[in-house]
Amino acid sequence: MARLLDSIDSPADLSRLTAAELKQLAREIREELVAVVSANGGHLASNLGVVELTLALHRVFKSPRDKIIWDVGHQTYTHKLLTGRKSRFSTLRQNGGLSGFTCREESEHDPFGAGHASTSISAALGMAVARDLSGDDYHVVAVIGDGSISGGMAFEALNHVGHLGTRLIVVLNDNGMSIAPTVGSLANLFARVRFDERYRKAKAQGRALMNHLPFNRQLSWATRQFKSGMKNLVMETLLWEELGFTYLGPVDGHDVQQVERALARARDFRSKPVLVHVMTTKGKGYSPAEGDAVYFHGISAKSSGKKTEPTYSEVFGQTVLRLIRQDPRVVVITPAMPDSNCLNAIQTEFPKRIFDVGICEQHAVTFAAGLAAQGYRPVVAIYSTFLQRAFDQIIHDVAVQNLPVTFAIDRAGIVGDDGKTHQGTLDLSYLSLVPNLIVSAPKDENELQNLIFTAVNCGRPMAVRYPRGTGLGVKLDDEFQAIDIGRGEILQQGGDVAIFAIGATVTPALGAAQLLAANSISAAVVNARFAKPLDSKLILELASHIKNIVTVEENTLNGGFGSSVASLLKQSGNENRIKRLGLPDAYIEHGTQAILRARYAIDAQGIAREIRSLFFPAAIQSINNTKRDGPGH
Amino acid sequence: MARLLDSIDSPADLSRLTAAELKQLAREIREELVAVVSANGGHLASNLGVVELTLALHRVFKSPRDKIIWDVGHQTYTHKLLTGRKSRFSTLRQNGGLSGFTCREESEHDPFGAGHASTSISAALGMAVARDLSGDDYHVVAVIGDGSISGGMAFEALNHVGHLGTRLIVVLNDNGMSIAPTVGSLANLFARVRFDERYRKAKAQGRALMNHLPFNRQLSWATRQFKSGMKNLVMETLLWEELGFTYLGPVDGHDVQQVERALARARDFRSKPVLVHVMTTKGKGYSPAEGDAVYFHGISAKSSGKKTEPTYSEVFGQTVLRLIRQDPRVVVITPAMPDSNCLNAIQTEFPKRIFDVGICEQHAVTFAAGLAAQGYRPVVAIYSTFLQRAFDQIIHDVAVQNLPVTFAIDRAGIVGDDGKTHQGTLDLSYLSLVPNLIVSAPKDENELQNLIFTAVNCGRPMAVRYPRGTGLGVKLDDEFQAIDIGRGEILQQGGDVAIFAIGATVTPALGAAQLLAANSISAAVVNARFAKPLDSKLILELASHIKNIVTVEENTLNGGFGSSVASLLKQSGNENRIKRLGLPDAYIEHGTQAILRARYAIDAQGIAREIRSLFFPAAIQSINNTKRDGPGH
Repeated sequence: MARLLDSIDSPADLSRLTAAELKQLAREIREELVAVVSANGGHLASNLGVVELTLALHRVFKSPRDKIIWDVGHQTYTHKLLTGRKSRFSTLRQNGGLSGFTCREESEHDPFGAGHASTSISAALGMAVARDLSGDDYHVVAVIGDGSISGGMAFEALNHVGHLGTRLIVVLNDNGMSIAPTVGSLANLFARVRFDERYRKAKAQGRALMNHLPFNRQLSWATRQFKSGMKNLVMETLLWEELGFTYLGPVDGHDVQQVERALARARDFRSKPVLVHVMTTKGKGYSPAEGDAVYFHGISAKSSGKKTEPTYSEVFGQTVLRLIRQDPRVVVITPAMPDSNCLNAIQTEFPKRIFDVGICEQHAVTFAAGLAAQGYRPVVAIYSTFLQRAFDQIIHDVAVQNLPVTFAIDRAGIVGDDGKTHQGTLDLSYLSLVPNLIVSAPKDENELQNLIFTAVNCGRPMAVRYPRGTGLGVKLDDEFQAIDIGRGEILQQGGDVAIFAIGATVTPALGAAQLLAANSISAAVVNARFAKPLDSKLILELASHIKNIVTVEENTLNGGFGSSVASLLKQSGNENRIKRLGLPDAYIEHGTQAILRARYAIDAQGIAREIRSLFFPAAIQSINNTKRDGPGH
Repeated sequence: MARLLDSIDSPADLSRLTAAELKQLAREIREELVAVVSANGGHLASNLGVVELTLALHRVFKSPRDKIIWDVGHQTYTHKLLTGRKSRFSTLRQNGGLSGFTCREESEHDPFGAGHASTSISAALGMAVARDLSGDDYHVVAVIGDGSISGGMAFEALNHVGHLGTRLIVVLNDNGMSIAPTVGSLANLFARVRFDERYRKAKAQGRALMNHLPFNRQLSWATRQFKSGMKNLVMETLLWEELGFTYLGPVDGHDVQQVERALARARDFRSKPVLVHVMTTKGKGYSPAEGDAVYFHGISAKSSGKKTEPTYSEVFGQTVLRLIRQDPRVVVITPAMPDSNCLNAIQTEFPKRIFDVGICEQHAVTFAAGLAAQGYRPVVAIYSTFLQRAFDQIIHDVAVQNLPVTFAIDRAGIVGDDGKTHQGTLDLSYLSLVPNLIVSAPKDENELQNLIFTAVNCGRPMAVRYPRGTGLGVKLDDEFQAIDIGRGEILQQGGDVAIFAIGATVTPALGAAQLLAANSISAAVVNARFAKPLDSKLILELASHIKNIVTVEENTLNGGFGSSVASLLKQSGNENRIKRLGLPDAYIEHGTQAILRARYAIDAQGIAREIRSLFFPAAIQSINNTKRDGPGH
């Protein structure tokens, strides 16, 4: 049977559909989402939750003339299916295929790209102001979840919107949870509105009426509601009014017609900011996802083999749990990622020593600084890309005061399928420039646990960055071992070239050394461990008798580990030749870690090839003759 | 006559004072503040505004056992006078003297240092949680202004406080303006409460009562107030209650007894977060400051001579005004700094094309990105140190999308008296690591205007960082000149050493070349202009025939301009000797720009001395014999 979905080539095709057809289309879209996400990985629950909302948005607004700006951008799969990207949808999150997020380069229907939370209202206000300055007339709609709106910059934007009074529509997609159940007072307010049975009655009785009343009549209505115990809904209405918005809602986000009516009213309001409060269910229509929306938030592509090694995140979670058991000073802070950071066991065993602060990286870091100032040893667990949000707090609240905060930086380096906005490929650079901060990266999961232990006990601010994915399967020390700050280790001796690798590139460097040995090139391999402070003594010592120096990092070459080594060597005046391997000064596209590591020559083959071609061109000839290390790439 | 102030050695000495004595003490403190700030520079108006509040805080709370955390920290002069720093108060903001901000190293009465806005509630919550985990009992008080509370991270913290319900006191110091009159809906709400004459009557009638009522009775009181038109006060009360706080106030912040009573109630509440709303007048008690609190916000130390050259900020302001006149795409955005960034003329002539977003750097940058996405050419004017707050927005909202936003970064490099938290000495590093971003610095104020013109027209994101203070007095081009992106210029030919300088260090480099010439050392001097992209061709060309290379920057050496040059030279395999001059990997203390530039060898004398001692030790002997360039430094 032909699918309705196949007949939708652009948003304009939606206008002719009947209510029944819209329902069928929503069903087909959900099937498509489940099929593609099951194969490719991605965000399932959040996308299942906004199918009807997306249909309603594209029936009421005329994209691309009207601008629909999706906060975070990970819930736009339906939007992609409806805006001319259906035929490529099976390439979602695959190298060279569609991005898992909104992207200006990908479609004129993506007026503003995103990947991080809480940016949509700021961007939307910029566009609305641009429209007004140009004397244009299009609509600007920001769609933001209840988790993202708790981020500080969303509040800054709301405050500015209210101040300017610019015509702008904010759709609050309220699913009662962002990634984990949303934290904070504002969320409680939403939740009470949401779960208060009375709101549905009140809605039927008087909601629509109220919004047509003049303001003094609204107040009178409000006072009556107070008396009848409708405090929360009134409060929320007043809160938004007070921020300068007209409040519409709440509406059932899975009823296309209801959402359309609210959006159409907002569209036709035309004088000031409007907030449309839409209630949705994360994972709607797919029972496994509906039942455990956190688990289904982000799904990795099906792996072929069974997983044996623990992930770095799992080892981190176990390490912190052990530290919390051993050391009363240790607490852990996560901005809305207790699951991904594998901290659930701590939530169960030590609920008072773990703090989920919501999607609030800035507050997370300074909150940790406050704890550290009073003698605690907080561990802040944040993905590399999201820690960028707290850059000033690292500098101004933690490092200036030299407070002992541990930054556990997951998803450092290439994260793979999430692509440009999520790669953790800048952190060695932006952390190394911060005075007082120690910056480290483990070569394997055992070193991860020992570096976390070291960080918690060193009495200074220290960052430990580690990659996405499984560890190497090495044995974990039963007792944590302290590691000397700023000391690397020689893993393999060699005389022709010295490879200084850090973090996830140490193992590939060892692999490269093996490949080079087959060409009779003798490579020393060093696990640098610290990007800062550098082990200058070790570097200069090896450089004094090995002419060719190579650095390898899964980080931008700009201001990274290799730059520090090159500056050291240049400054010391020695005459080595140096080659820095790492990532270019660019945003790294999406694709599997394996593809991207190969592309940027930081896997074993790539490192070996670069070393040969630069320092030992004669070896290349020999390889071309013998093909000793396989077909290459 | 002996001053009362002279008898106050610690906060404990305040407890014995009568009401009359407290008034006298407040008067004496104001005299002291005016005297010292007139001589040393500093924040006058904000300090004059909190004299009584500070007295009340130290009478009600027992510092250092109780923790008083001042947001921003610039309003703590009275606090310093009362907490054992009186005898050193005349050294305020002088090199080696007291800091102009709170500082943990300076006193046990400064439990958390600050210099940037909006951090106090996060830090206070961390301390309050630490107290509870330790089973301790002290009070934690965050004192935050109405301008700072609009910053996103303060909202993140409030949300978390309400969620945890931790015992904590937030004192909202509401002076109706942060630096410039506060922007935003929240500020409007405060303002309406503030200026509503009826609130005073209501306070007398029922405020105290209300706070003792059970909540349903409060609501009933609230509904009555709605009817009598007291919407704003009720709204504010409810807003704070809704965020989980008990609201006390508003109280007159210049009546010590009234403030004390409110603080004592908050202190004795002991069960949940409390918000104490205190109304103060910025500049209170000193009529020039009261009349123009913006001008008196920050005062520079009296200069000895008359000012002739325009400041960089002034040239920037004039440049943007001219660009706005010429180019309909140009708009300008400032986070609460229209005066300091010299944008007042634009506020008058083009009020619709300047946006003061309040102390909201994150929103400022993404708002600009939204404008740029719709064809505008926004200029975001932010001090270097505060731009750190928007690091992720630069990366994720502007640079990933390659949007043409101009970052005009004032106070880059050494800012002088404001010290550690305010030095703009990291920006070349943290900006250069951002893919797609062009990073430049002008050698003088004429190049500033031309670089701003270039940035606005280059169609890409570009940063222009320039120093605090006056320009060189050079003639400004009548017509703006576009500068080739990534091209430096040779200012002086030479054969013994090539000095690559950037920004404010170009003129000292020329001075150094003159000094070296007197030692028969011939120095080439290059104005690099761009930290990124580097002018690799020019650098390699000079390096090919000049053996000794020196880089100079007013920026950390870590990941800065010199590192990029060293990496380039090391990678290219040439055999030059290189010395990078700049700032160490440390937070730079406060002191005049002249003192600090000399200390870190980036003034003319320092550059010349470093070059001689490294590359031409023989020249030193000759200087010791002849003292040709004066007595040194």
